[in-house]
Order: sequence, then C-alpha cells, then structure tokens
Amino acid sequence: MTGGTGGAATRVVGMGVNPSAAVGVSTESTPRIPADHSGVTDLFAVLAYGEISAFYRLAEEAKLSPTLRGKVAVAKMAAAEMDHFDTLEQALSGRGVDVFDAMAPFVRALDAYHDSTDPSTWLESMVKFYVGDGIAADFYTLLADALAPEVATVVRDVLAETNHSEFVIEEVRRAVEENRSERDRLTLWGRRLLGEAITQAQYVMAQRDELTELVLAATGDLTGIAALFEHMQNSHAERMRVLGLG
Amino acid sequence: MTGGTGGAATRVVGMGVNPSAAVGVSTESTPRIPADHSGVTDLFAVLAYGEISAFYRLAEEAKLSPTLRGKVAVAKMAAAEMDHFDTLEQALSGRGVDVFDAMAPFVRALDAYHDSTDPSTWLESMVKFYVGDGIAADFYTLLADALAPEVATVVRDVLAETNHSEFVIEEVRRAVEENRSERDRLTLWGRRLLGEAITQAQYVMAQRDELTELVLAATGDLTGIAALFEHMQNSHAERMRVLGLG
Repeated sequence: MTGGTGGAATRVVGMGVNPSAAVGVSTESTPRIPADHSGVTDLFAVLAYGEISAFYRLAEEAKLSPTLRGKVAVAKMAAAEMDHFDTLEQALSGRGVDVFDAMAPFVRALDAYHDSTDPSTWLESMVKFYVGDGIAADFYTLLADALAPEVATVVRDVLAETNHSEFVIEEVRRAVEENRSERDRLTLWGRRLLGEAITQAQYVMAQRDELTELVLAATGDLTGIAALFEHMQNSHAERMRVLGLG
Repeated sequence: MTGGTGGAATRVVGMGVNPSAAVGVSTESTPRIPADHSGVTDLFAVLAYGEISAFYRLAEEAKLSPTLRGKVAVAKMAAAEMDHFDTLEQALSGRGVDVFDAMAPFVRALDAYHDSTDPSTWLESMVKFYVGDGIAADFYTLLADALAPEVATVVRDVLAETNHSEFVIEEVRRAVEENRSERDRLTLWGRRLLGEAITQAQYVMAQRDELTELVLAATGDLTGIAALFEHMQNSHAERMRVLGLG
C-alpha cells in the first residue's frame, strides 16, 4: 500500500515469525481467492502505481546523495521498480484492463503517502526506501498466500528480493553507529513512515470495496485483519533493528 | 558523446546512407582496433556516464509531461538506460576497471552538455531524447564497426534499438503538424542540440588522448573524422524530418 514495492525487506519478513501462521492465512493447496475475483485488478493496479510513484520519488531523492555511487545505487533501485511495473502492466493487459484506467483510483492515496513522508536528508530517503518496501512486502506477501497461483506469482515477482537492501542497510548502520542524535531522529522517522502507510492503506480500503473484500477473503475476518496489522508492526520493528534503529 | 544513448535513432541511421561507406570505415573481418586498445576503457566509461546522466535528466524532465502516460513512457526510457549501464559496468569490471573511477573524467563534459541543453517544455525534452540518442548512436555505431567483436558487441548492445522512439515521434509530429511557431521553435532547438553535442564531443577528445587515438584508428585519419561529423549532420537532418521538423 506504500510506494516502495521493490521487495527489499522480504528477507527481513522471513527472519521474523512465519507470516502465514501469524495471521492464520490458509496454506492449503486450494487458494481461497479465485483469479477472477474483482479485487485482483485493484491489487495489480495499486501495485503498479506504487512502482511508478516509487520510481519518481527515488529519482528525486537521489539528489540528496552525497556521492555518485549513491546516485547510481538509487537509479538501479528505480529501474527495478519499472521492471515490476512492466510485469503488472502485462498482467492487467491479460485481464483486458488498461493500466492507466486501473491506476487512477489510487493516485491520490499514494501521492498523499509520499507527500506526507517527503525525506529531507539522504538517510531519511534510505530508511524510507527500506522500511516502505518492507511494509508493502509484508502486506502483499500475506495476500499472495491466499491468491490463485497465477495471480500470486505476479504479486511475488514484483515483491521479489533485490540486493539493493544491502546497500541501504550499510549506509544507514554506518551513519547511526556513532551518532546517537541521528539514530533518535531516524527512529522517529521510521515510526512516522509506518503510521502514514497504515493511514493511507485504510483510506484506500475504505474507498475500494473490491480490494477490501479481497483482503477480508485473504485474512478470514476482521480479527484476521487486526492480526495482519499487528504482524506488520512486529516486522517493522525487526527491520528497524536491522538498520540499527529503535 | 551526448547523454542520450538509448539507441532510439539507430533505425533512422539505417534509413540514410550506409554509415561505414560514408566515412570509409573498414568492413573487413579483421578489426583495426584490438580489444586491449587503451581507448576502449574510455569508450565504455563515457557511454556509462552517458546512461547515468540521461537517466536522471529523463526522470527530471518527466515533470514536464502533461499526462501520467507520458511520465510512464519516460520512466521506461530511463530504466532502459540503467540496463545499459549494467552492461557497461560489467564490461569494465571484466577489464579490471572500476566504473566510478573510469567515469570521473567525463562527468564535467556530459554535465555541461545537459546544462546547456536543459529543456523548458515537454516537447523540447522529447526532441532532445530522440535527437541526442541519434547523435550518440551515429558516433558510436561507426566506432563499433572498427572495434574487436567482443568490444563492438557491448557498444551495439547499449545502443540497441528500443521501441520508445515511436512514442516520441508521435508526440512531436502530432504537436507540430498544425502549429508552425512550435515547429520553428523546435527546429532551432534541434540545431542547438547538435551544436552543443559536437562542442562537448570535441572537448572530451581534446582531454582524452586514448579516446582520440581510438577515434582516429576507427576513422582512418583527420579526413575520416571530418567525414564522420558530416555524416552525423546528415543523419541529424534526416531525424529532424522524421519528427516533422526542419
């Protein structure tokens, strides 16, 4: 539901509790959400606009990089987002849906997320990439477990682990190791990112019945949704620790 | 020698005179420039920084797009530049050279080219992408004809035709078809792009002996270089006609 969807933090999710077990998502071979569920188009569309908005935010934030090496690393992350966009555009096209029409309802919420979490430093930008990616990966990976295989494959592909997270972890850890005030500042920043992501996710759900139905079908019931958000908070805390924060 | 190196205009080159014949570049099976020529590292490096600077300029210029469709098209062009960068980074690494060290001497000239040709409208940005790419493709394709096969393959790969040029041609043609003042303005803009590209190419050559030697080896002699620049001007005029300009 956030802009960063390059999947940098799927590894971190794997380090914590088992996501499926945590929220009671079914792992039996028959998926509970068929490929023709009307929410699937919404799911692909929100992921697609997430890639586009992440691309442009990364390109913009690269200006904050103190080195050419940092700029190149960010350009590679941004290019990976576009590979994922291509995958989603094709998946939507296969469903007879134009990606631009499908993305339109999600522009406002995702832009609002980015506007409310506009980094003012290079390190804030790095934390946002890693943490935003992680929150998105948590949310969509759990949905994928309940989706028909041909749909789940698309979702997992666009959340696939990249090796960019290593760069980010090193940048942040090195910077905060001996700088307590920077660490405190970035810890607060991380908390704000999670809050804004959940706010915008709830806003999208309230607007899009089909997507809400899909999330309900994936999590089982309202208790399942509460467990999903709790799991996301735990994973977030684990990611912050990996960055040397919190 | 310019920033745009996505290869959009190689097709246009093919439409004109045969490049090899035009400048007397050898087409016999024995390449005249061995793979270990000291200018090859410079060649890969200037191409690599060209991709990075084109990436960030495109991402910046996408703000000028009146539509999300345009922004997405530009993001795809930018992502393609990064694929090419990866190819060049690997090729340099294979020669035991760090891409960042190798690019350093070219940062100033390429940044100067972009600073002196900063588009102020969406159409200027589109013309710059297409025309800049074309000038670069003309120059480097001719060099490739004289290079050892393993080097030529890398150069041709990063100049490979993409289908993005179709988008640009349509955007520009449609805009200038019934707007004469826009057509006149963009025609002057195209002329300026060629002039600035040649100025910066000459600046780079004057600074980098190895690259000058490589270009001399590829073109035969000073007469060959003059013929190369004449060929580039002819191809440029052809590209402008394709855009409905000039």
